[in-house]
Amino acid sequence: MNPYADVSPAEVRKLIREKTITTQTSGMCAGYAQANLVILPKELAFDFLLFTQRNPRPCPVLEVTDVGSRYFRIMADGADVCTDLPRYRVYEKGVLTGEYTDIEALWRDDLVSFLIGCSFSFESEMLEVGIPVRQIEENKNVPMYDTNIPCAPAGVFHGNMVVSMRPIPYDQVVKAVQVTNAMPRVHGAPVHIGDPAQIGIRDISKPDYGEAVTIRPGEVPVFWPCGVTPQNVIMNTKPDFVITHAPGHMFITDVKNIDLKYA
Amino acid sequence: MNPYADVSPAEVRKLIREKTITTQTSGMCAGYAQANLVILPKELAFDFLLFTQRNPRPCPVLEVTDVGSRYFRIMADGADVCTDLPRYRVYEKGVLTGEYTDIEALWRDDLVSFLIGCSFSFESEMLEVGIPVRQIEENKNVPMYDTNIPCAPAGVFHGNMVVSMRPIPYDQVVKAVQVTNAMPRVHGAPVHIGDPAQIGIRDISKPDYGEAVTIRPGEVPVFWPCGVTPQNVIMNTKPDFVITHAPGHMFITDVKNIDLKYA
Repeated sequence: MNPYADVSPAEVRKLIREKTITTQTSGMCAGYAQANLVILPKELAFDFLLFTQRNPRPCPVLEVTDVGSRYFRIMADGADVCTDLPRYRVYEKGVLTGEYTDIEALWRDDLVSFLIGCSFSFESEMLEVGIPVRQIEENKNVPMYDTNIPCAPAGVFHGNMVVSMRPIPYDQVVKAVQVTNAMPRVHGAPVHIGDPAQIGIRDISKPDYGEAVTIRPGEVPVFWPCGVTPQNVIMNTKPDFVITHAPGHMFITDVKNIDLKYA
Repeated sequence: MNPYADVSPAEVRKLIREKTITTQTSGMCAGYAQANLVILPKELAFDFLLFTQRNPRPCPVLEVTDVGSRYFRIMADGADVCTDLPRYRVYEKGVLTGEYTDIEALWRDDLVSFLIGCSFSFESEMLEVGIPVRQIEENKNVPMYDTNIPCAPAGVFHGNMVVSMRPIPYDQVVKAVQVTNAMPRVHGAPVHIGDPAQIGIRDISKPDYGEAVTIRPGEVPVFWPCGVTPQNVIMNTKPDFVITHAPGHMFITDVKNIDLKYA
């Protein structure tokens, strides 16, 4: 169990801000939603916001800051995007140019921050109702795959959907659909059930991102839209300047996973 | 019954395009979703898209066109925003400066069109399951009210939520919540049930927009977020140039109301 599992989001963000915590956030603040971060210059923000509007399943936006504002309001009122995540990555023209534990020195008045929902939130609900989450059992990163499912393009952004896969026992597949369908703000229902080839996945044992997990007899591979989609779509355009969270070093919100069921 | 109730959306849009139909669209193409239209210059489109992202209940966006594009793709592939609605209104600096049956002559390369979901869609589902819709019974426009519920501001856009009210028998209130909750793309669940004063409405018999309807003994006023909200919020800023549909002269989509339940 993570030593910060029972600590409040506000307290953990304070420890992150003070650089006492600089690790991955998985397992911290049990029950609270964690979110992906993307920061773009305003110039690209309209196209990206439009991309998320057209592709809400892979890109469920939880909050967008005002142009130039460092502070969140909805998901964690007053939290500072420059200091309240443990690790950031900066990409210039599509190339990783640095990792930072804060981005105060890099902040600009034309930046817009996007918080995007994360499958951690629906996995927490799946576990709650007794549906297995294999990569957690096997202590791995979830397997993710490129697909042949096109996203709706928007401005400069275009690309295919990336999906995550969880093997589900036949008798729990419907329940897995129901549970995740109730949480559209964190990817929602699966995008495919059963045959990887139907969505352009050739070898289920070789994920494009993350790690392969065991599919047991009597289990079906079930595929959900994945938050790697917007990251890929952004990086494909090689924008001049983007900041993201470093993988696994998420933004911890004040909103409970279960509250993401509601508008 | 409307003479175009059983005609297809594509056929009705063709008759509109040819100016054979220039009337209100209520009752046409039974079962198909109709949508509100707002056209803004790109300069304002980011703030407005952000406003809708932050306020999805009153501002459920069904489609946003590419900048400068006259054509829809998602809700009615290939439909022309300049010709396929029966009547348009142009506002300059907040003042109505003209009504048109097409806007080809006014089109500009910097315009972005927003289709916003309409409560007609959830009313169709309510009727289907036997919940009364009073203003339809009384052949009136739905009563709408200004409230004290603030929308989340975004850029230049800010204001309170406008709600529509339907009186629901006590024993069907829960069902009305369930039916509309299943349709978040057309306003979703109610925002308030029961006491108008709680949301800043002083006199239920005097709506701010539309017409009063009868509330019978044993009925509860139920309030839903209303699509007049984005219109008000835009007009409040007195933008240089906006085009909307004329009231009641909606865009008829190729998507069935029932399909708005799904992503």
